[in-house]
Amino acid sequence: MSEIQVTFLPSNVPIRVPQGETLLRAAMAAGVHINASCGGDGVCGKCRVIVEAGTVESEPSERISKEDWARGYRLACKTQVFSDVQVRIPVESVVDASALRRKAPRRTATVQQIGFEEIKEQGLFLPAVEKLYLELTPPDAQDHLPDVTRLVNHLRMHHNEHGLQVLLDVIRKIPTVFREQNFKVTVTLARPVRSSGKTLIMNVQAGDTTAQNYAVAMDIGTTTVWGQMVDLVSGKALAEHGEFNGQISYGEDVITRIMFAEKPQGLETLNRAVIATANKVIDQIVKESKVAREDISLITLAGNTTMTQLLVSVDPRYIRRSPYVPTATIYPPIRAADLGLNFERHVTALVYPQVSSYVGGDIVAGVMGSGMYRTEKLTLFLDIGTNAEVVVGNKDWMACAACSAGPAFEGGGITFGMRAAKGAIEDFSIDPITLEPMLMTIGNVRPKGICGSGLIIIVATLFETGVIDNQGKFDRSLKTPRIRENSNVWEYVLAYKEQTQIDRDIVINEIDIENLIRAKGAIYAGCMTLLAEVGMQPDNIEQIILAGGFGSYVDLERAMTIGLLPEVAPEKVIYVGNSSLLGARMSALTNSIRQEVVGVTNMMTNFELSETHSYMDNYIAALFLPHTDLNRFPGVNEQVTQHRADVAKMRGRSKEGQ
Amino acid sequence: MSEIQVTFLPSNVPIRVPQGETLLRAAMAAGVHINASCGGDGVCGKCRVIVEAGTVESEPSERISKEDWARGYRLACKTQVFSDVQVRIPVESVVDASALRRKAPRRTATVQQIGFEEIKEQGLFLPAVEKLYLELTPPDAQDHLPDVTRLVNHLRMHHNEHGLQVLLDVIRKIPTVFREQNFKVTVTLARPVRSSGKTLIMNVQAGDTTAQNYAVAMDIGTTTVWGQMVDLVSGKALAEHGEFNGQISYGEDVITRIMFAEKPQGLETLNRAVIATANKVIDQIVKESKVAREDISLITLAGNTTMTQLLVSVDPRYIRRSPYVPTATIYPPIRAADLGLNFERHVTALVYPQVSSYVGGDIVAGVMGSGMYRTEKLTLFLDIGTNAEVVVGNKDWMACAACSAGPAFEGGGITFGMRAAKGAIEDFSIDPITLEPMLMTIGNVRPKGICGSGLIIIVATLFETGVIDNQGKFDRSLKTPRIRENSNVWEYVLAYKEQTQIDRDIVINEIDIENLIRAKGAIYAGCMTLLAEVGMQPDNIEQIILAGGFGSYVDLERAMTIGLLPEVAPEKVIYVGNSSLLGARMSALTNSIRQEVVGVTNMMTNFELSETHSYMDNYIAALFLPHTDLNRFPGVNEQVTQHRADVAKMRGRSKEGQ
Repeated sequence: MSEIQVTFLPSNVPIRVPQGETLLRAAMAAGVHINASCGGDGVCGKCRVIVEAGTVESEPSERISKEDWARGYRLACKTQVFSDVQVRIPVESVVDASALRRKAPRRTATVQQIGFEEIKEQGLFLPAVEKLYLELTPPDAQDHLPDVTRLVNHLRMHHNEHGLQVLLDVIRKIPTVFREQNFKVTVTLARPVRSSGKTLIMNVQAGDTTAQNYAVAMDIGTTTVWGQMVDLVSGKALAEHGEFNGQISYGEDVITRIMFAEKPQGLETLNRAVIATANKVIDQIVKESKVAREDISLITLAGNTTMTQLLVSVDPRYIRRSPYVPTATIYPPIRAADLGLNFERHVTALVYPQVSSYVGGDIVAGVMGSGMYRTEKLTLFLDIGTNAEVVVGNKDWMACAACSAGPAFEGGGITFGMRAAKGAIEDFSIDPITLEPMLMTIGNVRPKGICGSGLIIIVATLFETGVIDNQGKFDRSLKTPRIRENSNVWEYVLAYKEQTQIDRDIVINEIDIENLIRAKGAIYAGCMTLLAEVGMQPDNIEQIILAGGFGSYVDLERAMTIGLLPEVAPEKVIYVGNSSLLGARMSALTNSIRQEVVGVTNMMTNFELSETHSYMDNYIAALFLPHTDLNRFPGVNEQVTQHRADVAKMRGRSKEGQ
Repeated sequence: MSEIQVTFLPSNVPIRVPQGETLLRAAMAAGVHINASCGGDGVCGKCRVIVEAGTVESEPSERISKEDWARGYRLACKTQVFSDVQVRIPVESVVDASALRRKAPRRTATVQQIGFEEIKEQGLFLPAVEKLYLELTPPDAQDHLPDVTRLVNHLRMHHNEHGLQVLLDVIRKIPTVFREQNFKVTVTLARPVRSSGKTLIMNVQAGDTTAQNYAVAMDIGTTTVWGQMVDLVSGKALAEHGEFNGQISYGEDVITRIMFAEKPQGLETLNRAVIATANKVIDQIVKESKVAREDISLITLAGNTTMTQLLVSVDPRYIRRSPYVPTATIYPPIRAADLGLNFERHVTALVYPQVSSYVGGDIVAGVMGSGMYRTEKLTLFLDIGTNAEVVVGNKDWMACAACSAGPAFEGGGITFGMRAAKGAIEDFSIDPITLEPMLMTIGNVRPKGICGSGLIIIVATLFETGVIDNQGKFDRSLKTPRIRENSNVWEYVLAYKEQTQIDRDIVINEIDIENLIRAKGAIYAGCMTLLAEVGMQPDNIEQIILAGGFGSYVDLERAMTIGLLPEVAPEKVIYVGNSSLLGARMSALTNSIRQEVVGVTNMMTNFELSETHSYMDNYIAALFLPHTDLNRFPGVNEQVTQHRADVAKMRGRSKEGQ
């Protein structure tokens, strides 16, 4: 979609946005505050603006009179832009945006795509399963070699394939399939992990089917199971689908799942639940991609240690008992049908190895899929989901740890916290004078709660504008009904109940903020502890790789403002999305990952933070916004100081003007 | 049991027999003819003898009056000997046995047992599965290695085990089993075929169970399925059991089975039938040996190509269609439970490889189990069952073929032919003057028919005494009601219906003899063709290994008399019994067989006799007793000539005496 320019007056702030974007989102991106507390649903009627030039499409609203409509008044949230436009913020709501506006549009991390061409150029495009079309010589009276011997000899002579083993299921198909098209057949070969291993002949089909060769890549998340249909010829993902993990009804996080698994039939129940979810995902991507099941030969799976053990039916109880040992970190190739996965019998399941009880296959997949294991750069890999895991290192060494961050970034422990779904407040701005909010929700509907990325922006903005201090406490001197004490807890009202979907005021209170500070503190302290343990400084970090559900939405500068991420130039931050899924897909595409992954996991030194002396000091120091030691966040410190000075100046002017 | 001596008077022929043997069997072994046509059942009353000295036990018979009983008359068939005895043959039935008697007791082949001590001494006792008892260090706060890593590291450090792979089923057991006896465990390791392969950890048990390590060895015969419980610690077979193959109801031989398999659901039906039989055998030997199923880790199986394909559910239809190609000759290790075999999930099934459509895993197992593949001696291996297979060679080369011998030796195509079971005539002698028979049946009951070894003895004896000529035709000049023409076919009455179990005269006729000659001709011609193709002479044969159902009973000199076996010294003939079962057991005991078997099958050059030019000439030359070319059987020729001269002399004397 082509971009157009929106210029906000009177402050004359330009912003480039895609055609069809709403004016409210454009304003938010430009750092121009417009009061709006219904999330973009057109209900509160506060986001009135005047379109002075350009083409827009706008829904009529009873909040705008006929006269005002004629004068160009529109609701910013219900107005889409289709050409370069000029928009004036009405005097009644305008503040000196030029003074406050962010230097750049919201900075999110660069999204890393799979560099399929690069993989090919590096000679790494060697799928774990490969198809070969063969024209065998049919047997006759002079040549009565057995079918299988005929096949193996042909592969040996014409394709230099040695150390072949033919699966029984293939042997069963051979007599018929060989004779369907007069000994013209396509075989599917599964490559061994080590070159000394056997190459398995895992399928045989009549005729030439080499153009149809597929794998499923799957991330078994605690919350969501994602699957991709991967075309092993083009490298493309043909379909992608996610479903909530059916285990959710038995517990939100891994610990409650393990506790459930310890009950009678608990393990079987959880195993069946996740397999059922995986099958739903598989069915959907098979349907979407129109791939024939017999052309799928592989499924690669990644999940954390508990999810992996539940997937393969291995009792996880010792994961949560000191000394926290997982049963296994490496799994052999498994027949997918034996796991209950809805595939033909020849399909092999490859499960990503784990490092420890709390650094699982999802993290390993991230390290592999993101290319961290091949980079020279000192990298901080951070996967924030239901829990948070940190890896520090590069191709030569790695240290990793799981942080007991808790689920704050997925909405856990936050009064109005929720997952990133329709109605979640995902962006926020505040009028520094009136302290009125500007809210954006996912789906532009009335708010229901606050998602992780929204939470970061809200807390960072409240801190920048001095509404809360560096311990997360509200400035009790500020005069606005939105800041109030409720059952001894101070809170800020984001949206009054009339503008919500839930018929309750949506607020953020000091307990929420404290929980967020603890969560970000745990993650930051984890990073710092790992760095310190390997004798490194935050300055040494050359790149940050963000993974996990909210990674692509998080406002990097705001994440640094609250001290979640160490302060680095935003361009050093890469977002890899669902790194677990990425890693699963990469290992379907390039067998070298399978060859190297065990070496990588052996190299990944695991630190149990609770048993690492420096961790507690790091953690306590991080329980401030952004941190006790402001020297670690010089940029944040400078910006917040400047911002607060501006706000103070404005508030002074505002008072003078009264 | 200790042996005692029986001396037959008046000819003064001594014979050593086990205590408890009947006088009739002792006489047969000594070559002393006593008329007896009820097989040893005490019915015909013809076998009256006088016990002159020694201890016997005898059943009273209404055929012997009180007075005769007091004079020492007894029925030979109902009298057991318990000390050295002297027995007189009454004048009325005696012929000059001294002239006719065989030089030695009946010569059967030396039975080869597994030389377990020899295997051990040669360092070949390396079972395919091995148990190791390990005392692992339990994890603690300083050492939280995953369970599987702990195990693998221990094996690596303390047992020099590398290239280990742990099966998923084992991973599933580990968390519980490790903690049952505080990390003291026994693991079962499956050795790879090649040293470069992986060693599988296939089971784990709490505590020390190394003394309990078992395998099942199984022969999947067309007619019978045999199984043995093999103790992998002592090398002993703890139990053995056979059941008729449940497929028999769908066809007697491999061709009719294949035809049935081609019908809808035919393959599944036959597969289920043989699996059900195998499970019956397994259940029985588990019960007899009192072995716990969880201590069984392996089943080794051997069968002909069709039986093997039906066992593993591979369509056998192309085995009987030109150019007669089997689907596979080598099978990967298979999880026994996947075949439907009633074992725990960790049990691995190893299936013997095949050479061709008609030289199957049973023959390969015989070659391996008999040690033929390791001998320097030029060996003729002969397995005579429902069909007959021949292998010629030694450790450096082998040629093999299947002979279309048909089932004559199992009773097929013989009017009163039957398998070796109770009531089958198994031994025979004839009074050269009166032409009255002496019959022995299996179980000493009234006769029902003739088994394979009996048939050989009957035809050889009729030939030696000139009752039939070298084309198998009766001497029409002999005067006895036992030789008669019936519906244009000449026959000899072995037992009149009153003395049989079947209320019909049991005879052998010229068509039966012709069928036997064809069968033995096909086998002999197969041996000669193979020898000729590799440029060898019958003289070069240094040893004959006989395998198959009737091998241990066959009278070697008589088998040479009819020209079934080439003429060699009887001590060069070894009988290995069920070689298929032997081979299966050997490969459970010594992994080196698995390592070498593929090389051996590659070395075994298969000849399709129907496509080998010299075969037909060899076959036609062999359609005589013993052969067209008597120079090939000089000993037989000399003996038969002498014997006939003796008979003629006696007949002359007998006429003079009239």
